[in-house]
Amino acid sequence: MTISYETVSENRSFGGVQGVYSHQSQATGTKMTFGLYLPEEAEHERVPVLWYLSGLTCTHENAMTKAGAQEWCARTGMAIIFPDTSPRGEGVANDDAYDLGQGAGFYVDATQEPWKPHFQMWHYITHELPELVFGNFALDREAQGITGHSMGGHGALTIAMTFPERYKSVSAFAPIAHPSESDWGRKQLGAYLGPDKTAWAAHDSTLLMRKRGYPGEVLIDQGSRDQFLDLLKPEALALAMAERRQPGQFRMQEGYDHSYFFVQTFMGDHVLWHAERLAR
Amino acid sequence: MTISYETVSENRSFGGVQGVYSHQSQATGTKMTFGLYLPEEAEHERVPVLWYLSGLTCTHENAMTKAGAQEWCARTGMAIIFPDTSPRGEGVANDDAYDLGQGAGFYVDATQEPWKPHFQMWHYITHELPELVFGNFALDREAQGITGHSMGGHGALTIAMTFPERYKSVSAFAPIAHPSESDWGRKQLGAYLGPDKTAWAAHDSTLLMRKRGYPGEVLIDQGSRDQFLDLLKPEALALAMAERRQPGQFRMQEGYDHSYFFVQTFMGDHVLWHAERLAR
Repeated sequence: MTISYETVSENRSFGGVQGVYSHQSQATGTKMTFGLYLPEEAEHERVPVLWYLSGLTCTHENAMTKAGAQEWCARTGMAIIFPDTSPRGEGVANDDAYDLGQGAGFYVDATQEPWKPHFQMWHYITHELPELVFGNFALDREAQGITGHSMGGHGALTIAMTFPERYKSVSAFAPIAHPSESDWGRKQLGAYLGPDKTAWAAHDSTLLMRKRGYPGEVLIDQGSRDQFLDLLKPEALALAMAERRQPGQFRMQEGYDHSYFFVQTFMGDHVLWHAERLAR
Repeated sequence: MTISYETVSENRSFGGVQGVYSHQSQATGTKMTFGLYLPEEAEHERVPVLWYLSGLTCTHENAMTKAGAQEWCARTGMAIIFPDTSPRGEGVANDDAYDLGQGAGFYVDATQEPWKPHFQMWHYITHELPELVFGNFALDREAQGITGHSMGGHGALTIAMTFPERYKSVSAFAPIAHPSESDWGRKQLGAYLGPDKTAWAAHDSTLLMRKRGYPGEVLIDQGSRDQFLDLLKPEALALAMAERRQPGQFRMQEGYDHSYFFVQTFMGDHVLWHAERLAR
């Protein structure tokens, strides 16, 4: 069954179309909004697609307007999807902190109150939104890659390591790499999943890397002057990658911080990375 | 005398630095903020510089975060400056409309009350801010180009045609092309300069094009599906360019609207255009 959606806006961009669409989500019980860039090639064939998961406080809009991805997706004939980072609205639980609740879904399915009724972002990103976009747009289900920034890098890595047959390429920008041992993680995983840490392990990239890794190459970019290094814990992931002999690259980028200026600088590398691996 | 300034932020971007700086302006009598991207080359030599003037409602920040210029400036070793579009603050005159007062300086020096005390954007952009940036940053005063979007395209064209010896390259994205015959212009030029239309002629690109043109090539990009075509009046400028045999290009870009998705799509072309003409 095709899931219906509404068109919020469509703007021509680099020969393709940057759309914003909304729909009623079964997973979250709310209206959800996402951005989707379709390159010109999508007018006549299904194209590879890159999922871009955003970080804390972001909506579907931040990366869509600031990450500079469209240029590279147009060059490589690839689509890119920008989902929102959480359910939103007056009837949705929230917290005064920027890093819990709305804008901070952490890409998990909450099992705890008050989050459980709406905070089902894992299911939304990995099942419901795919059904919608593959049912309605010229996207190739067999050519999916996933990436993200910060909390979204955490989402991209954990999802790719869980469904490696589906996501044929993976990368991350400054991911929250070891949330079960960080203040960006303990609070949220505790709130959404409860105090039993065994439930957290499926949502910790460092633990997943130690346990199973990813069958393809992994690309990680991290700024050396990131203001959140203590919270991101890139060294834990780098160590796990090295110990596992995980194929891929962990790049420490000198002088870069956590901003979209960092993301934009390396977006071309990441889009090309995915395009090469998704080429048919 | 070197004008002093404060550093608001600096972020590494494409090997260079995207800075935001503020200073007390003599021209506007207010604190003014601007963005300046310096490519890596500026660490050891003075580099060419492109002035980017923004449109209605914008601050220094919009184009800096959404236009994708840094990538191209890094590739070509060029700096780019993003000034604010007006004076701002509680003591500064304003209007409820988005297109008059704060965020809508129109790049003129107001002669009328209540605007005259602060709305001196022509002088600010062409004299004061240049003194500040050439006195403090590794920019080559002999290699300046100017561009802008919408109201900023109007500013870029009128300034370049007034000081062609200084701005050695010029381009515009969807400029307000004939303000003295548009609702984007009559109201503002009337408010800032008074009812005598002879004072407006120096701030109307179509009239300046008819009268004197520009000694080099001019590049104009305009989206064919721009939602503001009736206000921008590109056909007036295109006609004036053709009648004058103005060297350059007027490009009608099919399907593009007035948004930053349009600007971003053609930013590479514009930066390369300026870089070629400013090469020493």
